[in-house]
Amino acid sequence: MKIEVSNSKANRLLNTGNVILVTSTFEGKSNIITLAWQTPLSKNPPLIGICVGKNHYSHDIIKNSGEFVINIPTVEILNKVHYCGTVSGKNEDKFKGAGLTPVPAKTINSPLIDECVGHIECKIEKIYEIEHSSFFVGRALRVLVDNELFNDYWLVDKVKTLHHLGGDNYTIPEKLINP
Amino acid sequence: MKIEVSNSKANRLLNTGNVILVTSTFEGKSNIITLAWQTPLSKNPPLIGICVGKNHYSHDIIKNSGEFVINIPTVEILNKVHYCGTVSGKNEDKFKGAGLTPVPAKTINSPLIDECVGHIECKIEKIYEIEHSSFFVGRALRVLVDNELFNDYWLVDKVKTLHHLGGDNYTIPEKLINP
Repeated sequence: MKIEVSNSKANRLLNTGNVILVTSTFEGKSNIITLAWQTPLSKNPPLIGICVGKNHYSHDIIKNSGEFVINIPTVEILNKVHYCGTVSGKNEDKFKGAGLTPVPAKTINSPLIDECVGHIECKIEKIYEIEHSSFFVGRALRVLVDNELFNDYWLVDKVKTLHHLGGDNYTIPEKLINP
Repeated sequence: MKIEVSNSKANRLLNTGNVILVTSTFEGKSNIITLAWQTPLSKNPPLIGICVGKNHYSHDIIKNSGEFVINIPTVEILNKVHYCGTVSGKNEDKFKGAGLTPVPAKTINSPLIDECVGHIECKIEKIYEIEHSSFFVGRALRVLVDNELFNDYWLVDKVKTLHHLGGDNYTIPEKLINP
């Protein structure tokens, strides 16, 4: 079951550098973009940075709406994740094309993706222009996780987040390791 | 054997969101800091962002020198990585304390860590102040990888990079997966 956790835990959904699906909506247009270039930036306040190429369809939707949702996909939907990272939303409704289910967020207008195991609803605090991309700094307004798969951090024996090696090559976490 | 690869491959050393050891030096002081909050920002030019808390000893060394090295550690040196992430360089020489070997870089003054499997020598292009941290945007000037472990991307069947779940919990990549 998905439960709300403290916004200060947002970084724990992203710490391992996992691939994310970012959803956005503006003036009737919604889209999904697959991103690997993300990092937490602050725990309190809960800030996250995502790097989005200016030539991507999601770029202007995110910029104009001032918000986005980070969704955490797992290996079970790898094909859908790869599809959302290789097809442009200019030409296709990616929710339909990938067979992913939009669910309303609570604090913003962009939808969550039901098939994902965690979500962070974000409002943009700052935009830095870096070469061909915008680096959107979002503040977490609401954080949801599947409570069977997350207990202050991802229970990697049970949940296989995706990590992008490059091209169509991905990897998944093997197991918990302690020093 | 470590070989130089194109600077435009810098992102491929970091794409999976792996933990890094950042080395820096300024006016006779050198340090190592363990970071999970990193992301590539551009392939060409090759730009990388790292998030460093202002209260860390490495922060001012990096800021004042205008450079840093990103080193890629693996599970074999997890104890040293965790040590470098939990002890302050204010009180200890972390190279000695962790038993890590400094090796001269070619393009900058900060040392590489011999025990790591990849290195990115970076010059700072821009600094963004984000809450309690600086987000240093570095340009890759030289990229080195162990050529038995990397072929355009990390060969995760052979090389186990580290991924930080939170606290003293880490994970490693299991295997290559394709959609």
